[in-house]
Amino acid sequence: MRPHRSVLTLVVATLITAPAAAQEPIRVASPDGRNEARIHSRDGRIHYSVERDGNPVIAPSLLGFEFRGAPPLRDSLRITGVTQASRDETWTQPWGEVRQVRDHHNEIRVGVAETTAAGRRFDIVFRAFDDGIGFRYEVPEQPALHFFEIQNELTEFALADDARAWWIPSNRPRLDRSEMLYSASPMSLLDSVQTPLTMRTARGTFVVLHEAHLVDYARMNLAGQRHMEDRTLRAALAPLADGVKVRGKAPFNTPWRTIQLADREADLVPSVLGLNLNPPNVLGDVSWVKPMKYVGIWWGMHIGTMSWGSGPRHGATTANARRYIDFAADNGIDGVLVEGWNTGWDGDWIANSHLFSFTQSHPNYDLNEVAAYARQRGVRLIMHNETSGGITNYEDQMEDAYRLYQSLGIDAIKSGYVADGYQGHSHWSQFRVRHNLKAIQTAARYRIALNVHEPVHDTGERRTYPNMMTREGARGQEYNAWGGEGGNPPEHESILFFTRLLAGPMDFTPGIFDITLASADGGPRSPQESRVRTTLAKQLALYVVLYSPMQMAADLIENYVNQPAFQFIRDVAVDWEQTRVLDARMGDHVVVARQERGGEDWFIGAITDEEGRTIDVPLSFLPAGRSYVAEIYADEADSHWMTNPLPISISRRTVNADTRLTIRMAPGGGQAIRLTPAR
Amino acid sequence: MRPHRSVLTLVVATLITAPAAAQEPIRVASPDGRNEARIHSRDGRIHYSVERDGNPVIAPSLLGFEFRGAPPLRDSLRITGVTQASRDETWTQPWGEVRQVRDHHNEIRVGVAETTAAGRRFDIVFRAFDDGIGFRYEVPEQPALHFFEIQNELTEFALADDARAWWIPSNRPRLDRSEMLYSASPMSLLDSVQTPLTMRTARGTFVVLHEAHLVDYARMNLAGQRHMEDRTLRAALAPLADGVKVRGKAPFNTPWRTIQLADREADLVPSVLGLNLNPPNVLGDVSWVKPMKYVGIWWGMHIGTMSWGSGPRHGATTANARRYIDFAADNGIDGVLVEGWNTGWDGDWIANSHLFSFTQSHPNYDLNEVAAYARQRGVRLIMHNETSGGITNYEDQMEDAYRLYQSLGIDAIKSGYVADGYQGHSHWSQFRVRHNLKAIQTAARYRIALNVHEPVHDTGERRTYPNMMTREGARGQEYNAWGGEGGNPPEHESILFFTRLLAGPMDFTPGIFDITLASADGGPRSPQESRVRTTLAKQLALYVVLYSPMQMAADLIENYVNQPAFQFIRDVAVDWEQTRVLDARMGDHVVVARQERGGEDWFIGAITDEEGRTIDVPLSFLPAGRSYVAEIYADEADSHWMTNPLPISISRRTVNADTRLTIRMAPGGGQAIRLTPAR
Repeated sequence: MRPHRSVLTLVVATLITAPAAAQEPIRVASPDGRNEARIHSRDGRIHYSVERDGNPVIAPSLLGFEFRGAPPLRDSLRITGVTQASRDETWTQPWGEVRQVRDHHNEIRVGVAETTAAGRRFDIVFRAFDDGIGFRYEVPEQPALHFFEIQNELTEFALADDARAWWIPSNRPRLDRSEMLYSASPMSLLDSVQTPLTMRTARGTFVVLHEAHLVDYARMNLAGQRHMEDRTLRAALAPLADGVKVRGKAPFNTPWRTIQLADREADLVPSVLGLNLNPPNVLGDVSWVKPMKYVGIWWGMHIGTMSWGSGPRHGATTANARRYIDFAADNGIDGVLVEGWNTGWDGDWIANSHLFSFTQSHPNYDLNEVAAYARQRGVRLIMHNETSGGITNYEDQMEDAYRLYQSLGIDAIKSGYVADGYQGHSHWSQFRVRHNLKAIQTAARYRIALNVHEPVHDTGERRTYPNMMTREGARGQEYNAWGGEGGNPPEHESILFFTRLLAGPMDFTPGIFDITLASADGGPRSPQESRVRTTLAKQLALYVVLYSPMQMAADLIENYVNQPAFQFIRDVAVDWEQTRVLDARMGDHVVVARQERGGEDWFIGAITDEEGRTIDVPLSFLPAGRSYVAEIYADEADSHWMTNPLPISISRRTVNADTRLTIRMAPGGGQAIRLTPAR
Repeated sequence: MRPHRSVLTLVVATLITAPAAAQEPIRVASPDGRNEARIHSRDGRIHYSVERDGNPVIAPSLLGFEFRGAPPLRDSLRITGVTQASRDETWTQPWGEVRQVRDHHNEIRVGVAETTAAGRRFDIVFRAFDDGIGFRYEVPEQPALHFFEIQNELTEFALADDARAWWIPSNRPRLDRSEMLYSASPMSLLDSVQTPLTMRTARGTFVVLHEAHLVDYARMNLAGQRHMEDRTLRAALAPLADGVKVRGKAPFNTPWRTIQLADREADLVPSVLGLNLNPPNVLGDVSWVKPMKYVGIWWGMHIGTMSWGSGPRHGATTANARRYIDFAADNGIDGVLVEGWNTGWDGDWIANSHLFSFTQSHPNYDLNEVAAYARQRGVRLIMHNETSGGITNYEDQMEDAYRLYQSLGIDAIKSGYVADGYQGHSHWSQFRVRHNLKAIQTAARYRIALNVHEPVHDTGERRTYPNMMTREGARGQEYNAWGGEGGNPPEHESILFFTRLLAGPMDFTPGIFDITLASADGGPRSPQESRVRTTLAKQLALYVVLYSPMQMAADLIENYVNQPAFQFIRDVAVDWEQTRVLDARMGDHVVVARQERGGEDWFIGAITDEEGRTIDVPLSFLPAGRSYVAEIYADEADSHWMTNPLPISISRRTVNADTRLTIRMAPGGGQAIRLTPAR
């Protein structure tokens, strides 16, 4: 027992939540009245808090900044005025998890000024949605705050209880990456972690902290104190090489800090809070941005049957590319990725990022011939731009490269940034964030869409620039190919769905059929070796579960030949009219239904962790009175991710809105279903 | 993707595991041949490694010491000799999870000496069991190493893959405690954590790191580097106030470092590796050490209806104690605990540990009368000794107190150490470890058994001193009583079973019937407030699942009146002939069967996390051809820990060894079953 400390904690909390002596809190509630943000001013400091249904979610939390070379903007503050606004509009995504997005919120803008001689000013803008709260700082042009260097953003998120958090670390030396397995902890034990940070409070509310509209600023990580009696997370911006977080000039706005709220996991998806806090499309007609499925010369490099660089196993040969283009054309796959097509891969390419050319092909690869053949066969060629962190080298060539690609009819790039930082800047610093926007805007001018690996996290850029289609930014399929890492455990994707995927689409690269990786060395790998830790049916289900508008069929194409299960990959949509999570529990299982955009088909993806499950799913989302043919790709009775991953049962039945489907999944298994209107 | 780093890791691993140039490794294998430890000497350093079925579990890991005021015992070492031994004996526990314990192992003793002039020497002793590996350092008397101060024990545990670990932190400022919720992470993300540390490797092997026979040394925590490319945990001994970890004098032996190994969760329990590494009983006849169930004046203090100190709600009154004694006697409960019976509770008792008397009763409490009444009614009175960390104050009074208790016929003490340290020493330092042994030995002289709260972790002391019966050392029931902490989530006990309970018995204090805590303030608490987060049936099941030889019925006794479910608590055994885990998954669910010692009854306890489950359990452990009456305490169809925790179904059926029981548990639920031979 530790009764004494518990009592102390309560007393402190009571003091903090007592009404401010100076000013009553300013409030803004969501349209449904459930979510409320309050802004408090006391003793010269400004705090905010958040309640849901009258219960505290975020206890009073500080707002402000520390600067280099200037006093902090934190003390001697007073509220100078409040204005209110509301909006209710529905906008259409050019592509996405859902077509229509409703932006319905109430807003307050709170003017804040220093009472000191400097009299610096800023506004805090809060927007309250039914699915959460967003707020940001807006700093107007003013004499006392022109050029600035932000040393720390002081924004706090003081959790009202010791919520369970699913997290990956951040801001650690040599660890500026997102390709990690998730941990689950009481949030009080966190130090610096990445967002989106998904938490479940003791009362069962889901709270997701993230950011939106990250432009010309540093990525926000969150740092806790790692003490069970401190539940405050603080903004921990990714640093530039000299430790400064953000250099800028007023007027400026910070990114939005977002607090997504839901009563249960299933209500977290689709996550549109961040999209609503990004500016609308600035590109105008984006009909040239087209979702796609693709195959590629890629997996062979990870299992060791091909190489990026020169040598007998060099993957990016003209002949190989033509073979992949033929396969894509013959199977209704939209695109082909070719990695290792350019010069710069030979030797230590991570240490020699300056050697990469983005226009010069490897001698084995005739870019003009391949591009012409792709056009001839109606296949979209995806150019690969690995920078290994050589951002200057990439930016120097960007215009020439993108112009070349456009001239060849190419409209998509997969870029890569394998590096833990750039000349001392964090991988996620303002330096990289600026580059992101430059790449997106430049690509847009050449009508090219982007799929970024080792990215800055997704903060909803796709609303403003719909050519920013998808990215990696989490631990994907390739970890199953490598030795020494242990691969991805069966629970991994059931966590990703409620963490990384809440930020936006992910190029996870599903669809490995050669689960035992027999292709790599001629015989299957044992369950104890690194290999894919799912059943085959689960690989199919991932196409529906893990949303990406560019969705890879990741395996070697020869592994799809004569595979009846490949029909699902041919059929599955990559752009959606609507999305419904039918059943889910964090880390355990997900069942999601999505309606094809521009079509009548529905698709269901169901995945489970290492535990086999049977889940009853009512199909009441289907229109009443209409019959559908369900094509069901299911685990066999004795399927098991470890001992028997390959057996798959493919069956058909007729269903309608009254049907309850019984979805049986093997341990580490899943189920993929296509629902087509019966003729 | 991050292929480059992965390749590097592999190369390094290959170099390290290459055969030593100097000496072939020395090996010792378990009797079944599956577990093998190897000791390597290279370049003057000694490493060990562990394999299971030929697969690496612990990669080569350093052995040695750093001293204050002397060179480290780490370099310029050579192996001077090896001796082998084996043992196969079965010994009997006076009480326990199982009656008979087999100690079957092979041993090697490796002599090590410095090649330098000092020529210091030590032995490393490895014992290989079928359930794991134990090793320790033995330092003989020698001129060059007499008095010593250990600054760091250099023992490493280099995990062969990035196993998933279930952990609570340690060695953090103001956090020297074990009463925390568990986290789950890749082990590479750990910093300092407590043992037992349970991990699951990528190949599914369970690895539990802990220690055994902790005497006159510092508790071992484990520290990782928190970097995904470093999988080495290092011994991190709990420090004395001046930073020294252990002061001693040769000859001395360290505690055993234990590596328990199993193919699946169910094979981890009962855990006897540590018991086999402790010396046999030194107390001779311990028939005076008797397992018990008890009730007590305790829960009222946590829910606020009683107080430890003076005042209108003072719990430890003579009248209350008589009432509890009557209840125990009338219901076949062996003992009664009375907290707050002594002087010292008034005021800030944590800051004023020196004020506690362990002989002086509060004026409201007539110790002689209560003790006499307990004797008269055949009830065992448990004395409460809260020290709040005042170890000197306690030791000063110990002889007098224990002599007094014995004179009153008292044979059990619940002691408490609510403190995060002692005069700058860690809560788990050598200072506290020495006190432990003093308390155990002193209590044994007065034929008193101990139940220690805020203890040093259990390292198997009970084998040598069977009066060291049970302890806390994890987050127990009382956290459900307090506000502000969120209580224990439904998964908590399913984690405890495979973490804390692997060390030894735990006084979790199950049996709260007033799950909504209506007693505390007259009306039930809502699911959103802190309250017990299980169904009633799960509270019963915990008596079987969470082993303790002193098992409390923790609720206010008035909450047991007219409760049919209380019959299970009356009936359930507290001492076991054998234990079988029938089904289990870490953090999800446990089904365990235990046979009463000295009786024919079996008991089954089944618990689940927040997910409802139905589990088929074959009763094939029952003797063939014999019928049993099963009394089944089950969740009702609509039971739910949050919305409907109280309904319980009590039924009977006849079963035998051919029966498959279908155990259905509600979300947050459980099931408790008594199996009695049919007459």
